[in-house]
Amino acid sequence: MGKGGMSIDDHGEGKEENMAAWLLGINTLKIQPFKLPTLGPHDVRVRMKAVGICGSDVHYLKTLRCAHFIVKEPMVIGHECAGIIEEVGSQVKSLVPGDRVAIEPGISCWRCGHCKQGRYNLCDDMKFFATPPVHGSLANQIVHPADLCFKLPDNVSLEEGAMCEPLSVGVHACRRANIGPETNVLIMGAGPIGLVTMLAARAFGAPRTVIVDVDDHRLSVAKSLGVDDIVKVSTNIQDVNEEVEKIQKVMGAGINVTFDCAGFDKTMSTALGATQPGGKVCLVGMGHSEMTVPLTPAAAREVDVVGVFRYMNTWPLCLEFLRSGKIDVKPLITHRFGFSQKEVEEAFETSARGGNAIKVMFNL
Amino acid sequence: MGKGGMSIDDHGEGKEENMAAWLLGINTLKIQPFKLPTLGPHDVRVRMKAVGICGSDVHYLKTLRCAHFIVKEPMVIGHECAGIIEEVGSQVKSLVPGDRVAIEPGISCWRCGHCKQGRYNLCDDMKFFATPPVHGSLANQIVHPADLCFKLPDNVSLEEGAMCEPLSVGVHACRRANIGPETNVLIMGAGPIGLVTMLAARAFGAPRTVIVDVDDHRLSVAKSLGVDDIVKVSTNIQDVNEEVEKIQKVMGAGINVTFDCAGFDKTMSTALGATQPGGKVCLVGMGHSEMTVPLTPAAAREVDVVGVFRYMNTWPLCLEFLRSGKIDVKPLITHRFGFSQKEVEEAFETSARGGNAIKVMFNL
Amino acid sequence: MGKGGMSIDDHGEGKEENMAAWLLGINTLKIQPFKLPTLGPHDVRVRMKAVGICGSDVHYLKTLRCAHFIVKEPMVIGHECAGIIEEVGSQVKSLVPGDRVAIEPGISCWRCGHCKQGRYNLCDDMKFFATPPVHGSLANQIVHPADLCFKLPDNVSLEEGAMCEPLSVGVHACRRANIGPETNVLIMGAGPIGLVTMLAARAFGAPRTVIVDVDDHRLSVAKSLGVDDIVKVSTNIQDVNEEVEKIQKVMGAGINVTFDCAGFDKTMSTALGATQPGGKVCLVGMGHSEMTVPLTPAAAREVDVVGVFRYMNTWPLCLEFLRSGKIDVKPLITHRFGFSQKEVEEAFETSARGGNAIKVMFNL
Amino acid sequence: MGKGGMSIDDHGEGKEENMAAWLLGINTLKIQPFKLPTLGPHDVRVRMKAVGICGSDVHYLKTLRCAHFIVKEPMVIGHECAGIIEEVGSQVKSLVPGDRVAIEPGISCWRCGHCKQGRYNLCDDMKFFATPPVHGSLANQIVHPADLCFKLPDNVSLEEGAMCEPLSVGVHACRRANIGPETNVLIMGAGPIGLVTMLAARAFGAPRTVIVDVDDHRLSVAKSLGVDDIVKVSTNIQDVNEEVEKIQKVMGAGINVTFDCAGFDKTMSTALGATQPGGKVCLVGMGHSEMTVPLTPAAAREVDVVGVFRYMNTWPLCLEFLRSGKIDVKPLITHRFGFSQKEVEEAFETSARGGNAIKVMFNL
Repeated sequence: MGKGGMSIDDHGEGKEENMAAWLLGINTLKIQPFKLPTLGPHDVRVRMKAVGICGSDVHYLKTLRCAHFIVKEPMVIGHECAGIIEEVGSQVKSLVPGDRVAIEPGISCWRCGHCKQGRYNLCDDMKFFATPPVHGSLANQIVHPADLCFKLPDNVSLEEGAMCEPLSVGVHACRRANIGPETNVLIMGAGPIGLVTMLAARAFGAPRTVIVDVDDHRLSVAKSLGVDDIVKVSTNIQDVNEEVEKIQKVMGAGINVTFDCAGFDKTMSTALGATQPGGKVCLVGMGHSEMTVPLTPAAAREVDVVGVFRYMNTWPLCLEFLRSGKIDVKPLITHRFGFSQKEVEEAFETSARGGNAIKVMFNL
Repeated sequence: MGKGGMSIDDHGEGKEENMAAWLLGINTLKIQPFKLPTLGPHDVRVRMKAVGICGSDVHYLKTLRCAHFIVKEPMVIGHECAGIIEEVGSQVKSLVPGDRVAIEPGISCWRCGHCKQGRYNLCDDMKFFATPPVHGSLANQIVHPADLCFKLPDNVSLEEGAMCEPLSVGVHACRRANIGPETNVLIMGAGPIGLVTMLAARAFGAPRTVIVDVDDHRLSVAKSLGVDDIVKVSTNIQDVNEEVEKIQKVMGAGINVTFDCAGFDKTMSTALGATQPGGKVCLVGMGHSEMTVPLTPAAAREVDVVGVFRYMNTWPLCLEFLRSGKIDVKPLITHRFGFSQKEVEEAFETSARGGNAIKVMFNL
Repeated sequence: MGKGGMSIDDHGEGKEENMAAWLLGINTLKIQPFKLPTLGPHDVRVRMKAVGICGSDVHYLKTLRCAHFIVKEPMVIGHECAGIIEEVGSQVKSLVPGDRVAIEPGISCWRCGHCKQGRYNLCDDMKFFATPPVHGSLANQIVHPADLCFKLPDNVSLEEGAMCEPLSVGVHACRRANIGPETNVLIMGAGPIGLVTMLAARAFGAPRTVIVDVDDHRLSVAKSLGVDDIVKVSTNIQDVNEEVEKIQKVMGAGINVTFDCAGFDKTMSTALGATQPGGKVCLVGMGHSEMTVPLTPAAAREVDVVGVFRYMNTWPLCLEFLRSGKIDVKPLITHRFGFSQKEVEEAFETSARGGNAIKVMFNL
Repeated sequence: MGKGGMSIDDHGEGKEENMAAWLLGINTLKIQPFKLPTLGPHDVRVRMKAVGICGSDVHYLKTLRCAHFIVKEPMVIGHECAGIIEEVGSQVKSLVPGDRVAIEPGISCWRCGHCKQGRYNLCDDMKFFATPPVHGSLANQIVHPADLCFKLPDNVSLEEGAMCEPLSVGVHACRRANIGPETNVLIMGAGPIGLVTMLAARAFGAPRTVIVDVDDHRLSVAKSLGVDDIVKVSTNIQDVNEEVEKIQKVMGAGINVTFDCAGFDKTMSTALGATQPGGKVCLVGMGHSEMTVPLTPAAAREVDVVGVFRYMNTWPLCLEFLRSGKIDVKPLITHRFGFSQKEVEEAFETSARGGNAIKVMFNL
C-alpha cells in the first residue's frame, strides 16, 4: 500500500483474506468481507481492539456526506481507534508484533508546502480514515504507516488509546491558542469536544477554566471532570451582553482565551464579547457556517479568532497526558458495544441519540 | 503636566499664554486662546508645523462622538502631526530646541498589564490626542512627553512626519499579520487606510500585492503607488464566490494574508474566502460592527482573523521607511491648507467630501 | 519620589522619620536611621515583614561590588521582600492599607525601547533595589510604586511572598526557554537557582525533569522537592561525554531544554552535548565569565543558547503558582532570623556559609 | 528508487545506461560510468546543466571526510545544482520534460519528529547529495524526488538556479534570526557564506548591514554587492573590545543581529560583544569547534546564540528573490569550467586556492 492509505480503489486488492469491516453503503451499515491492502516496507498490520464513534461517523451514516465529502461507494467507517500490532513491514524498527498502539488516522502527502512547513494537518492531499474515498478503521484489521501508530504506555488501556483521537482536537486547539499557566480559559459548550478541550486546557496549565452550556447535565459532567466553574446560559441571543457580564464575574479575572466548541451565532458572540483585549477566541465547533457576530469591536480590541482543523503531532502528547494522569479520559467513555450487527446498530443509535452518552466505544 | 496628557481638565491651567488652538465645540470648530499645561521634566514643548485630517476628526466634527467616546466640552481636534521643538524639560536628553519631530499621539499609563507586557496600544488608561476628554494637536503649540517625539531624518519633511500617524496603522497591521518576503498580500479597499497598508506591506517585503475596490479612481491611485495588480469588484454580496476566484487568479499564487481595510460583510467574506489555508485575515477597516460572514469554513482551514487597534512602537520604523525611500507618502498628500478660520473650514469640508482627496494637510 | 526609586541621593530627604534600615557601608552592615522619600501619587508605603538574603547581597557585603556595580556610599541592602501596606498615594486604586504584598524590586524607565517593546528587564535606566546607588529593602519601611506591589492571596504567607523574587528567576528562564508539557527539562546545578528553576519547570508542565549536581545533599533536596530523577557528576571536565550519555539515559527521552544553573565550562559543555537537535540551552548561572565550550557542534544541531537577565511580569504568575499549590517554596526556607544586629550578622554568615542553607529569611 | 536518495548501495542497479558522473575515490576524482536508479512514481530524471563547487566538496576531495561523515566507497561529488527535466514519474503533476529546475539536495524521511514538526533539516535519516554514502550531483543525469525540483522563473538562469543552494544557507540563517525591516545586521566574515548571508539580510529588509573581515579584497567585494558599510579588523584577539567599539560606531545604531560567518574565537567574541541587549548572534561559520568566548556576559544581556544547520523550504524564496531582482547572485560566480577531466581538476584547484574565487561553477 505504501504511503497511500486504503482508498476505495484499493478495496479487495490486498493479499490478506478473511478480513471483515463495517462498510457504510447507501443508508446502511453492513459487516462485509474486506481485503486488506499490501503491507508496505514502512507499514504495520494492526488488529483493531477499540474504536470510538464520532459525530461525523453518525453524520455520514445519516446523510452519506460531511462538508464537501460524499460517500459514493461502500466505505469502512470509523477513525478513533487503537489495536495490537500483528505484522510489521521490512523497514519498521519502532514496533514489533504484540505492541499495543493508538492510531493517528490521517496520512499526509509530505510533498506539499503545508506538509513541509510543519502544518501537515492542512495537507490538500490528506488521506484520512472514513473520509471518502478512504476507508476507515471499524474493521478487524487495518494496514497503516508505522509512524502513525504510537505505542501505548503500560498504564494506558486500548480504549484510552482510541480516545487520543477526540482528545487530539482539544490538544491541537490548546496549542493553536497557546494555552499555558497564564491563560484563563472559557469554554463555550460542554459536549464531547468542549469536554476534551477543557481537559486539555487544564493539562496545559490553565489556571482557571469556566465552561458554559444550556444543559444542566452537561454542566454537571464538566464539573465532575474538574472545570473550575460552570455557567448556565439561555439559547436567546438577546441575553448575550448580560451573560458576558455574568461569565466574566464567575471567571473573576481576565479571560485570555475562549474556545467556542459549539459554533453558533450566540456562542461566538459571547466568546468575542467575553474575551479580554489582546486575547484569543478559538473556533472549534461547527454549528453555523455563516455567522452573524460582532467581529469588528472584537478586532478593535485585538481579540483574534483562531481556527482549528483536526490536529497534528498530538498523539505523543496525548499519551503522555494519559500516562501521567494529567488527563483522565475514562469517565468520557459512557457506553460500550461489541462487533455484532445488532450491537453496531445499537451503538450508532446510542451515539446519535446523544442524551447522557458522551463517547460510545466498540470493543472488538 | 507630567505623563498625563493634556486633558480638558488641564485647559487653561498652564503657564504659557497666547497659544491658539482649534477647539471642537457643539457643532462648531473655532480658533480659541488656549493655555498650555506646565512642562514636566520629561516633556517637550513643540511648535506645530504640519497637522493632517483623519476620518475620525471629521466624524467628531459631524457627530461629536466616535465609538463610545463623546465630546462633552470643547476639545482641541487633530492627532496626525509634526513640529519643531521649542523647549525641553529638565530631564530630557534626546532632544534640543530646533529639532524637527514627528509626534506619536497616545500616552499610555505604563502601570497596567498591557503596557508592561509590550502591548501598550491596548492600555485601558491611554490618553490619546483628540479622544475626549484629551485635547488634540491642531494648535500652534503643544506639550508632550519627549519619548513620543521622534526626530526627523534630514531628508524627511514635516508633512511626511505628520504622515507617520496614518502610516503607523498600516505598519502595525503588517506586524500583527507577520508580513515579510514570503507573504503574498491582498488588500480589500483602496481608501487611505488601504493605501498605507499596501505601502507598508511592500516595505515589509511582500512579494506580491493585489488591491481590490469598487472605484476606478482609487484603483488607479493604488496602481500609481506601486501595487502589483488591481481588481475591480461590485457592491453585490452575491458576487463573492466569483470575485474570490478572479482575485485568486490575478494573484497567481496562494494569498497568505488579506487586509480587510473596509470592514463590510462583503469585503470580509471575500477576504475569508480568498485567503489560503493557514493564512491570516487582518481586519483593519471598521465598516460594519456586526458582520455576517462565513467564519466557520475559514476557521476550518485555519485562516485566522487578526485584529488591530491603533499601533505601538511604529514611529522609528515609519521614519526609517521614509528615510530610505522604501515608502513615499508624499503622493498621498493631495490637499494643503493654512490655519485661518476660512481655510480650516474648507479643509474639513474637503476631507469630508472624499472624492479625490486622500490626505488633507494643514501647514501651520 | 515619583517613579524614581530610592537612590542614595534621596537618602534623608523624605518626610518620614524614625525609619531604620540595614545600610551596607565599608565592610560593615549597620542598622541606621533612614528617612523615607516622599510618597508620590502612584506610590505606596510598605512595612517590611519578610526579607530573604540573596547570593548577591552576600557578595556585596564581602566585596562592595557585583559585576560592574560598586557600592560607594552606604546603601540599604536586600531585594527579596514582602510587607504590609501602610499608606497609599493619591492615585493608587489597586491597594489599601493593610494589604499584604509581595514586592518586585526593579523600577524601569518606561521611556526606552526595551521598556516600550515588552522587555523592561533590559531597561538601561533600571533602578533596582540594592544595586548601587539605589537603596534596597532590608528596612522597616520602604516607599515603592504601587504597580510593583502585588497583593498576596489569602493562603500565601509573607515569607512565601518574599520568595517570589528568587522564584521569578526560574519563571523567567522557563518563559524564555518556552517550557510546557512537551519539553523534557535537564537542570545543571541543584543550588537555590537550580531548585527554583526546577520547581518552575514542573509548574510550566515539563513532563520530565532531571537535575545534575556534584553534591549528594543538594541532589537529595532536589529529589524531595519533586524532580523526577537525579544524576551525580564529577568536577572533572574529561568526564563530559560519559556523563552526557548517562544523563540522556536517565532522561530516557530527548532533552528539549537544559538550564545551566551553574555556568561553568563543564556544566555548559554538558548542557550543549546533552540537549537534542533543535533544543535550547538556557544559561542562568554565572560561574565563569569567559567559557570554553563546544559551541559550534551545538549550533550545527540548531541547539540555541538563550540568556536570562532578572525577570519581568513574573509576580502575578508566581503568586498563582503559590496559591494553587503548583509550587511550594516553603521547604526552601531553611533558616529564619530577626532584625537585631546580632541576628542580622548571623543570618549573613549562615547564608555565606552555604552548607544546608538554601534560603535565609528575615522576619521583621 | 522511491523516496530513498541514490545511496552507494544503489550504484549500478538502475535501468539507465551510459550515464557518467564524477566519483570521488581514494584521493582521486574520476569520471566514470554510472547507472541511474529506477525512476519512482514521484521522481524525476534531470539532465544536469550547472553544478557549483562548495567548500565541503573540496574538503571531501582532500580528506575524504567532513565532520563525522567518511567516504568509504566511490561517491559522486557535488550538491549545488540545476538542470532540465528529462522524464517524470507516473504521479508527478508539477513538472514536465523540458522544465528548467533548481534542485534541493536533501531527502528527509518524513517519519521522524523533526520532519513532522516542521524542522526537516534536522532529520536524523536525511539522505543528502555527496554526504556518504549518498551520491551527489556532479553527473550528467540524476534521479530525484519531484518535490525537491523547483521550476526556474523565465528570467533566472540555470547557473543562478544552482546558486540557490549556497544562498539557502543565508536565507535559512535570516529566518532563524528573524531578520526584517527592524533588524540592523552585522556580518562577521566576507567569504562566500558571509556574502550570501549579507545578500539575504538585505532582501529580508535589514535597514543597515555592516560586514567585517581581515581582507581588503573581500571587503571591497562586499561593498560592491551592496553592504552599507565595511570594517577591517585584525586577527589579534586582544583587539576585540576596541574593534567592537569601532563596529558599533560604524553601525551608528543598535546591532540587533550578528551573523558569525567565520566561527572563530575572535569573530564570536566580537559578535557577542557588539550585539545589543535582547539581540541575537547567529553562528553560521564553523571555524573552531570548541570556542573560548564571553558567553556569560552576553547571556546576561539576553543576547541569544542561534545555530543553523543547512536549510529548509528555502528554494521557493530564493527563486523569488532572484526573479524579483532583490538578490543578484551573478557577481558571485567568478569562474566557470566544463566537464572534462582537465577542467574538473582545474576547477577544484581554483576553488581550493581561494584567492579571488568566490563561486566556481561547472556548465555541463
